[in-house]
Amino acid sequence: MRPDHPFGIQTLPYGSFARPDGRARVGVAIGDHILDLSAAWPTLAPAEENLFSSGSLDRFLAAGPVLWDRVRSALTRWLGDEREGEHVHGFLLPAAEAVMLLPFTVADYVDFYASEYHAANLGRMFRPGTDPLTPNWKHLPIGYHGRAGTIVVSGTPVPRPRGQRRTADGSITVGPSLRLDIEAELGFVVGVPTTIGEQVPLSAFDQHVFGVCLVNDWSARDIQAWEYVPLGPFLGKSFATSVAPWIVPLAALEEARTAPPPRTPRPVAYLDDSDEARWGLDVRLKVAINGTEVSEPRFRDMYWTAAQQLAHMTVNGASLRTGDLFASGTISGPAEQSRGSLIELTWNGREPLEINGGRRTFLEDGDEVVITATAPGPGGAVVGLGEVRGRVTPGGGRAAAPRGARHGEGNG
Amino acid sequence: MRPDHPFGIQTLPYGSFARPDGRARVGVAIGDHILDLSAAWPTLAPAEENLFSSGSLDRFLAAGPVLWDRVRSALTRWLGDEREGEHVHGFLLPAAEAVMLLPFTVADYVDFYASEYHAANLGRMFRPGTDPLTPNWKHLPIGYHGRAGTIVVSGTPVPRPRGQRRTADGSITVGPSLRLDIEAELGFVVGVPTTIGEQVPLSAFDQHVFGVCLVNDWSARDIQAWEYVPLGPFLGKSFATSVAPWIVPLAALEEARTAPPPRTPRPVAYLDDSDEARWGLDVRLKVAINGTEVSEPRFRDMYWTAAQQLAHMTVNGASLRTGDLFASGTISGPAEQSRGSLIELTWNGREPLEINGGRRTFLEDGDEVVITATAPGPGGAVVGLGEVRGRVTPGGGRAAAPRGARHGEGNG
Repeated sequence: MRPDHPFGIQTLPYGSFARPDGRARVGVAIGDHILDLSAAWPTLAPAEENLFSSGSLDRFLAAGPVLWDRVRSALTRWLGDEREGEHVHGFLLPAAEAVMLLPFTVADYVDFYASEYHAANLGRMFRPGTDPLTPNWKHLPIGYHGRAGTIVVSGTPVPRPRGQRRTADGSITVGPSLRLDIEAELGFVVGVPTTIGEQVPLSAFDQHVFGVCLVNDWSARDIQAWEYVPLGPFLGKSFATSVAPWIVPLAALEEARTAPPPRTPRPVAYLDDSDEARWGLDVRLKVAINGTEVSEPRFRDMYWTAAQQLAHMTVNGASLRTGDLFASGTISGPAEQSRGSLIELTWNGREPLEINGGRRTFLEDGDEVVITATAPGPGGAVVGLGEVRGRVTPGGGRAAAPRGARHGEGNG
Repeated sequence: MRPDHPFGIQTLPYGSFARPDGRARVGVAIGDHILDLSAAWPTLAPAEENLFSSGSLDRFLAAGPVLWDRVRSALTRWLGDEREGEHVHGFLLPAAEAVMLLPFTVADYVDFYASEYHAANLGRMFRPGTDPLTPNWKHLPIGYHGRAGTIVVSGTPVPRPRGQRRTADGSITVGPSLRLDIEAELGFVVGVPTTIGEQVPLSAFDQHVFGVCLVNDWSARDIQAWEYVPLGPFLGKSFATSVAPWIVPLAALEEARTAPPPRTPRPVAYLDDSDEARWGLDVRLKVAINGTEVSEPRFRDMYWTAAQQLAHMTVNGASLRTGDLFASGTISGPAEQSRGSLIELTWNGREPLEINGGRRTFLEDGDEVVITATAPGPGGAVVGLGEVRGRVTPGGGRAAAPRGARHGEGNG
């Protein structure tokens, strides 16, 4: 394993994979290989032998920070120490042989709106002449619930959504979205749950959140624009949200922690991180369409941190479940080339991008979007977050199968 | 069993229950008794013997309409035929001995806004002098995703939520909600799932939706008012949503089907139910606070039906999962005494209600809200929907337990 590999010993992200036609297994990425942790753990670690047996991360996420640390220490020893290496060798497979799966059961999905640059850009486009930020924006991290059931793993095709929109002449039409967009985001995965009535203070962020993954929050801007007043985005977002297959533990991001931007006015007490729990993160993203890089968003530019988002999400006593996923909202910075959505990059379609395959305002059928990211690790190493990839397919609006059919079972 | 009992043979709702300290079991309400279907089914019906063994409705919901019909026919025979009665007698227990549980694993939760009277009342209160309905309101059933993880079964205490609000002088404060409200709604439970890219046409409503339950969508109006622009309700709703323990199958509501109100403009094709699938329902609700009835909402007054909501929710290709729950939105009618929320009943707190225990604008700690409902059944019988009950407790904002604690496992 090359020491400069983004999935080197400094990273050790967790995922779920299968060999073709095989059962789901928990894996840890190391270089261009995957350690089959479902197989290795009961052999190499005597305690908690069922921790990874289901092939999903659910049980491990719920287990909490003491066990998270213990497993990471064991992996670091097994994979970082030459003498230990021979024991794990038999549990490694080339990453290219694995089919990656959704790594955990998504409970609730929440999407925030935490980039001041993104929110202000949209405000300038849609409410010119007024304050680009709504009055609440700097007082609380605005968020909303999204559809957990349409979260898909990187590589899953994304059918173009259909829906209602209002045309420029005011008439209502129904058809495929003409303004299909991306949103480059980071997602945070909750491990340790709470009960109704509990709040998670800023200082307890890393006792509940296990790690992060890349998110592409696909957005149909025309559907969204017509539907979203007064109850927020619904069908403009609910058709698909793609996530990277690898969950990078917070423990791998210690070197990436950075001070969040200054905030005025000072947030109310439960959101005030000026003395503690400063969870700015120096994660650098790249967005490419059909192989052409179109943007380099920086997570450190985000106004609200994930710790503030979690404190806000629970201040009303709402409980957390293992597998809750909350995403940052589009990551956009002050520079044009750091904007995390096409609606910003093309300024609402008025300034097309030149990419391999032609000019783009919004996405065309067949376009493939790849978002990657890295963060600084210890000793100059680079921590990789992998990639979230998705290709737009024509969709088409198939009617569901006829009465009496049995599509499947359970909530899988 | 008295023939006029709302849980008579015409109803046969499904739930999940436990005797104190016992395992969860699927039950069917019959009069003041519950049939232990987890125990009875493998004994009395040779096929599909594991259908109810988990104690939750999940597997049955996923099984689809052919099996739904087969089970209801068997129950009708067992419980309605004197000669068959002796076989089931040993599987009955008094309902008073059972602790009711959440009857299925809630996948995604969506809340609509389908009462024209409710939407117009709120518009008149908050946007006086403008059209009380937003321009999209009569073109599509407006909805948003809520928090599935805080759906609780009837009887669960509801801690008063805390949060940010803006006071009349413009300052920001954090504390317990001072405007805690109810919303009387009907919820619809999805059984048969779809895959991404499929749409569910109006005509396929009863191939996917299994049944209905009462819902109280608790709402903190002060938190909601400050947070909801531009991305919709979040913490004002996410702290708790109560559901009745009994799911009444659509098959029990055939006599309650009624024409929806006339709609102008005519909805676009995928929402146009003028020729088919008219799922207006004559369900009559009663809302009581501390024993005093305060409202009698009628579901037949709803502008958008559940079939239209399902067609809309999937028109973009969003998939359904077994256990998806979508609620109607507050049920309010044209008469003052048919309004389904306190904000309407007290006209934003200006006209207090007289109830047992004093005057109320919004809910006080200790207040208990009970919503019940019935619908017409065959031959003059009454189909009952049971009740959804909840008492407000002081809350208090406990901080979550310290680092390393293990609260529990999985998504329960």
